[in-house]
Parts: sequence; structure tokens; C-alpha cells
Amino acid sequence: MTAKIQNDHPIHELIAARWSPYAYSDRPVPVDSLQSLFEAARWAASSYNEQPWSYIVASKDDPAGYEKVLSCLVEGNQAWAKIAPVLAIGCTSLKFARNGQPNAAALHDLGQSSAQLALEAASRGLAVHQMIGILPDRARELFQVPEGVQPLTGLTIGYPGDPKSLPEQIGSRDAARRGRKPLSEFVFSGRWGTTAPIAG
Amino acid sequence: MTAKIQNDHPIHELIAARWSPYAYSDRPVPVDSLQSLFEAARWAASSYNEQPWSYIVASKDDPAGYEKVLSCLVEGNQAWAKIAPVLAIGCTSLKFARNGQPNAAALHDLGQSSAQLALEAASRGLAVHQMIGILPDRARELFQVPEGVQPLTGLTIGYPGDPKSLPEQIGSRDAARRGRKPLSEFVFSGRWGTTAPIAG
Repeated sequence: MTAKIQNDHPIHELIAARWSPYAYSDRPVPVDSLQSLFEAARWAASSYNEQPWSYIVASKDDPAGYEKVLSCLVEGNQAWAKIAPVLAIGCTSLKFARNGQPNAAALHDLGQSSAQLALEAASRGLAVHQMIGILPDRARELFQVPEGVQPLTGLTIGYPGDPKSLPEQIGSRDAARRGRKPLSEFVFSGRWGTTAPIAG
Repeated sequence: MTAKIQNDHPIHELIAARWSPYAYSDRPVPVDSLQSLFEAARWAASSYNEQPWSYIVASKDDPAGYEKVLSCLVEGNQAWAKIAPVLAIGCTSLKFARNGQPNAAALHDLGQSSAQLALEAASRGLAVHQMIGILPDRARELFQVPEGVQPLTGLTIGYPGDPKSLPEQIGSRDAARRGRKPLSEFVFSGRWGTTAPIAG
């Protein structure tokens, strides 16, 4: 099941295909696919090419490691994420490695790398669901994440599955269309809030 | 001229093709292409589907508007960005519209939308160069960006051009290969800093 989007302007099929499922199949993710997902993340743009992102990853091949990552998600996310064969925690370094100065793009650039990871997944029939609902202090402790590195997101990785495998109030979310604001509400010119002519 | 990447694992051609040029052609960007770029941004993932991103955009068709955006970039970026036919400022809303609570994913999710915008550009032979080097207070004042919305990035949009059109110390950057850390340095398992088996 995929939630098809209704786009107002043509976009690349890869971008149109990306979505964030709740229901996953138990089909394992091939190692070479996982490598390509992180390779795609690797080539994201970043401020001063700092590449502040890092990922703590675990698959069900390693049940103890998987449980450790799962336990860093908030309860509401564990309820559905525990079916996904691969979990990851997205972290970002808040300071530049070369001079220790704050990196104002640190969170932004983790977003860029994870976006590329999710699109590479879409190109392989896989899907990624990112969550801000994690327990960063627990992740920090369990995985000895150093001072200056922020665990920010959880990611599920796997093949989309049958929403009926989930409690109804969660599974039903996969059938719902994902709406978006029209361009007129976020593409501005001249002043913030004034729709740009191209977005009218 | 494009800076080809050397990837260790196969990735989708669209992701491999994306790069951030300094030199732009003066060839205008068709309006329908621009619309598709922002449409791609629109369909990014975001926490609670908040879509916190917005863009203030200006093209050279509107010289006064263009100068206004250009003036929000730091001087070092103006030096090369002023050739690009389209400029934008990426902003993000720091609080959820529905309840005024802080959105911990606000910066991250602007990164996601801009990453999709840049990949849509790559699919059309266009290129985007994002900059954290902007003057947010100036942008806030010039474009009346409200409290709670953060101007974070500048973006150039256009067709890549001839690096010889730029001062040599800037143009030469386009010929340089963009290196990246290997997966072993940012894909971990068990604890932060320990390379995951898939990344070994």
C-alpha cells in the first residue's frame, strides 16, 4: 500500500514515490541496499562539507542491538516501529570538527542526509519513516554518545507492509492521504507571507 | 562542468548527480521548472507533517527584489551568488502552528525540503547551492519575517556555468572533487563511534 500524492506541478518520480509508512513487512533489508542508503546519506550537501550526521543502526539480525535502539523511541513509536527490520538513530555534531565552533547548520544538514537516505530507499521499494519522538538522553547513555553530538531522530527502514498487521488506529494512518500546503502558502516574494508570482 | 563523485556503493543517479556549483550560467530558469523545484520541497517529510519551511524567492526578472535577497547573503557569498538567476532564503517556523509548542525538528525539516528541492533541480540539469552564510537579522527586517520564524539558509538556483567567469580562487572550487567521510566513520552500531558491520 502506498499513499499516492496529488502534486500540483510535475516532480521526479523518486520524490513522488517517497512516503513514511507505519506498517512494515518482516522481509529483511539486504545488506547491499542498506549500504546504498547510507551512501546516499553520505553524499548530502552540508555547510563547509562538515558532514555532521551520524547514524546508530541495528537490524533484527542482532536482536539485542535492535532492542537497544528500539528502547530509545518513545512508546507510541515503539508500538509500530518494532515491526521494521532495521532501526537507526540520527545524530548530529553540533560543533565543527576542525575548530570547535558551533555549526548552525548541524540539525539542518542531518535533515539533508536523511532526506537522501529516504529517497534512495524509495528507489529500491524500501521506505523510511523518520521520528522526532525519541528519548535522546537514553540514546546518549546507552550508546555513549559524546557531549556535543545530539541524537535527534529515529528512523525505521524496511519494505512497506500490511496496515492490518497494526492496531487499527495506527494502521489506518497508512491509507490516509498526506496533504501538503499549496505553494502559495510557503513560497513568498518581496515580504514573508506574500505569495510569489510563480506560486500564485 | 560537474564534479563527479566517487561512491563506494551504488546510489540513484539523481543523488549522484546533485552538487553545489559556484559558477552559474546567466540562462534564466523557466517558471515551470521553478514551480517543480518548490513542489519537490513541498512533499518532503516533516514532523507531524508540520511543513515548517518557507522560501523567499527572487529572480533577475525583478532586479530590485533580487538585490534585496542578494543583500541578505554574507559578502563572500554575494561574490559568486550574484550570477545565479534565482536566489532564495530558506526560513523555518520554530513553533507548531496548531499549538505554539516548540518544534524540535524545525531546522531539520527545512533541510529535508531543501534537499528535495536540490534533487529536483538536479533532475532538470539545474543546480542549487545552499549557504548558511546569510544575514538573518537583515532578512528578518527587509522581508518582515515574523517572530518565531528563522531565516536560516540562502539558496542559489540556476544552470551551472563556466568557473572562468568567477575570480580564480572561487571558480577553482568547482573543479575540486568533493570528498566525503567513508561510511565507517558515521554509521555505527552498539555504541557511537563503533563502525557498524555493514559499514566496515
